[in-house]
Amino acid sequence: MSDPVVIVGGDAAGMSAASKFKRDAEDQAVVVFEKGEWVSYGACGLPYYVKGEVETLEDLVSVTPEAFVEERGVDLRTNHEVTAIDRDERTVTVEGPDGEFEQAYSDLLVSTGARAVEPPLDGMDLAGVFTLHDMNEGAEIRQYLGLDTPALDLPAIGYGEVAAEYADAEDPEAVGIIGGGYVGIEMAEAFAAHGLDVHMFEMLPHTLQPFGPEAAATVEDHLREQGVDLHLDTAVDGMVGDDSVERIVAGDDEVPVDLALVGVGVAPNAELAEDAGIELGPTGAIATDEYGQTNDEHVYAAGDCAEATHVVTGEPDHVPLALTANRAGRAIGATLAGDPTPVGEIAGTAAVKAFELEVARTGIIDEERAEAAGFDPVSVTITAPSRAHYYPGGEEIEIKLVGDRESERVLGASMVGREGVAKRIDTVATALHAELTVGQLSYLDLAYAPPFSPVWDPVLTAAKVLDGKLS
Amino acid sequence: MSDPVVIVGGDAAGMSAASKFKRDAEDQAVVVFEKGEWVSYGACGLPYYVKGEVETLEDLVSVTPEAFVEERGVDLRTNHEVTAIDRDERTVTVEGPDGEFEQAYSDLLVSTGARAVEPPLDGMDLAGVFTLHDMNEGAEIRQYLGLDTPALDLPAIGYGEVAAEYADAEDPEAVGIIGGGYVGIEMAEAFAAHGLDVHMFEMLPHTLQPFGPEAAATVEDHLREQGVDLHLDTAVDGMVGDDSVERIVAGDDEVPVDLALVGVGVAPNAELAEDAGIELGPTGAIATDEYGQTNDEHVYAAGDCAEATHVVTGEPDHVPLALTANRAGRAIGATLAGDPTPVGEIAGTAAVKAFELEVARTGIIDEERAEAAGFDPVSVTITAPSRAHYYPGGEEIEIKLVGDRESERVLGASMVGREGVAKRIDTVATALHAELTVGQLSYLDLAYAPPFSPVWDPVLTAAKVLDGKLS
Repeated sequence: MSDPVVIVGGDAAGMSAASKFKRDAEDQAVVVFEKGEWVSYGACGLPYYVKGEVETLEDLVSVTPEAFVEERGVDLRTNHEVTAIDRDERTVTVEGPDGEFEQAYSDLLVSTGARAVEPPLDGMDLAGVFTLHDMNEGAEIRQYLGLDTPALDLPAIGYGEVAAEYADAEDPEAVGIIGGGYVGIEMAEAFAAHGLDVHMFEMLPHTLQPFGPEAAATVEDHLREQGVDLHLDTAVDGMVGDDSVERIVAGDDEVPVDLALVGVGVAPNAELAEDAGIELGPTGAIATDEYGQTNDEHVYAAGDCAEATHVVTGEPDHVPLALTANRAGRAIGATLAGDPTPVGEIAGTAAVKAFELEVARTGIIDEERAEAAGFDPVSVTITAPSRAHYYPGGEEIEIKLVGDRESERVLGASMVGREGVAKRIDTVATALHAELTVGQLSYLDLAYAPPFSPVWDPVLTAAKVLDGKLS
Repeated sequence: MSDPVVIVGGDAAGMSAASKFKRDAEDQAVVVFEKGEWVSYGACGLPYYVKGEVETLEDLVSVTPEAFVEERGVDLRTNHEVTAIDRDERTVTVEGPDGEFEQAYSDLLVSTGARAVEPPLDGMDLAGVFTLHDMNEGAEIRQYLGLDTPALDLPAIGYGEVAAEYADAEDPEAVGIIGGGYVGIEMAEAFAAHGLDVHMFEMLPHTLQPFGPEAAATVEDHLREQGVDLHLDTAVDGMVGDDSVERIVAGDDEVPVDLALVGVGVAPNAELAEDAGIELGPTGAIATDEYGQTNDEHVYAAGDCAEATHVVTGEPDHVPLALTANRAGRAIGATLAGDPTPVGEIAGTAAVKAFELEVARTGIIDEERAEAAGFDPVSVTITAPSRAHYYPGGEEIEIKLVGDRESERVLGASMVGREGVAKRIDTVATALHAELTVGQLSYLDLAYAPPFSPVWDPVLTAAKVLDGKLS
């Protein structure tokens, strides 16, 4: 019998691959090593767990470890860390609860994910300073806030121990969020829901950098309306305090806070692969081909640790998002089971809820980036109503649409508004995959009914206006 | 100076054409003859006017007659009916308030719209029996219901006169809706909102025929939950009563009602064109080429009276919807101003609100129709949540997705659910225009965030399942 497929990392990409592989190749073995306790969880839901809209961490789990083992036939080993890959021998070194051992593999999938970047700020080790990337961090933040963290049915999850540490502290009243990205924006809503004063620090002139300054400016106005104290264009020097964080220092400014959340982005966990001579790409994530294969034909990579090909530029890119990980994992599972399946290209499509606003983006909306990719970008920003003008409850949707002057291809879009935004971006994302021109986009037969759209959907209106500028 | 462009009919197609023409060819004249008083109105909003969510009929008007004349330079003549076209002389015969006259044209656009079909039922002429296609009918229904019809600022709208006729009648308590299409479904909601008992009669086994039996069955369960008494598979013989409708008769059944709404579809107003020797197509609407031109190079047709080309079949089709009319009108306006512009293809994309449900469809979802067009249809029907499983407030979305076995092209889809349906169909509509395969649809990079979608958007899930069936 041949060696099993081995998967390093048990979140979206790894477990999707394991499940698909076992479905398509039932009689072959797959072993998943996960260094922590959690597998197949929706880290994207952590802000809503902290906010209290999701009751327990367990609710964020898509498929339990038991189900993977008992129903799907996956040999899943939590608390097992892979520390080295020997590509010549096709083995990995594993450290588990019972010591170190070698595991042979026929093919290997590296799906080690990403980690929250810890910037070199003073005071990162103070109590009350958090990042938010893994499940236990979510529980710790709730405990630090003095909130319930209902017990879990899942075995061997150890975060309950931290509760005692924070039991005597006074509940925080002010929080500093360092970084105005997805996590920062979503956590601002979560903290505000618990009545905290929220300060947000962003080094750049705008929050939500991937969404472009137009959408970000609208979000920022809304954040201020919601009482968030925005410190834009502001580099934080660090946190100060005795044992726990007491102030955030940024130049001459000192802002008193009781809690600090550092959300300045994520970095791919590519070291394990790199140490084994697996090539990284220009983004620092693991380089892969259209099947997710690395420079070693027996080593694949998928998820937040790996690059993917951007559908607009055709170049490798690193956009660590959940669908990309699930999709690539599933494709690699199929490939390893004998049905070569491309992992798919990415458009960087993303949506985020910012209090009452929906914000979304897809493709290339940054002019400099478009130029670097060889395009001559032309853009328009329009507003249009979400419903027929006479139907009650409609809201303005603001759309920035970007096209290429020469090819007239759609390059990307951002949108922001109180309704009808998050999934409306999918029309543009689909157009990107299909390489539609702006003119073609403007002539799509999209749905109309008074409660849901004006006759000309806002996307069509944006395309009409941009097409007029292109022709 | 050459003769003006002449447009017959002043609603969506006609006024879009007139506006675009004057914008692109400012120094040339365009004359619009509209036989009624209303121009550029949103008839789709009439159910919401009857319901009371739209206060006045005037609110449904997009652009007022005054604005067309004064701001856009359109020579708009309401209460002017074109009764004949002389193609050899290039003139039309017009009956206006001051008598009949001839008007020469350089090019002619026939945008005469459609009318509600009046089926040959007994009692169609009883008081209290209505169709709902033009604005005044909306006001008459409100008056018959004993509801306010606030006065309008628009001049020369005569519907106020009918109010007296109904002033002494008792307010209706039960209504019979004959026909379970868009208008019937939307009006069921409107009547129910005023506390009426609603009976709906549909000749076919299901309501909402273009949406397919799967979506319709879900809608019907919901209609029953909302208290609508459904009479499916039931041919109505007619209405009986003394002066006003008192009962609806269907075979041996007699259902007491105080009002009857007949909504059994629309028919193109193609007679004017047909009488002038303009060719009709297989659907009975005016045949047009990709520029909206008829068999006469100086006569164009657009909107509910005209055919368009279906994007999936490549064949002429008649789907009288607002966007098609607006789009074709605008394109013909551009063409007549010197910039030849195709009117665009249609996918039959449509959405409707049915009480708390959203229902949507695009492309070819009827298996027989797909086979008639030369396809070998394969379909799946799945349900998937509208939000991440852990995010509160999510609803099930049911999707039927249809593909072609040989080419693996996406052919169409229907969807139904309480949220996230009406505009989600646009992803599939875009895929139809781009001729994507089911596999390509399953690999789109669509937006994900817990409040708005599961990681795999329901459209992707449906495509994955259908792709498995195709390969």
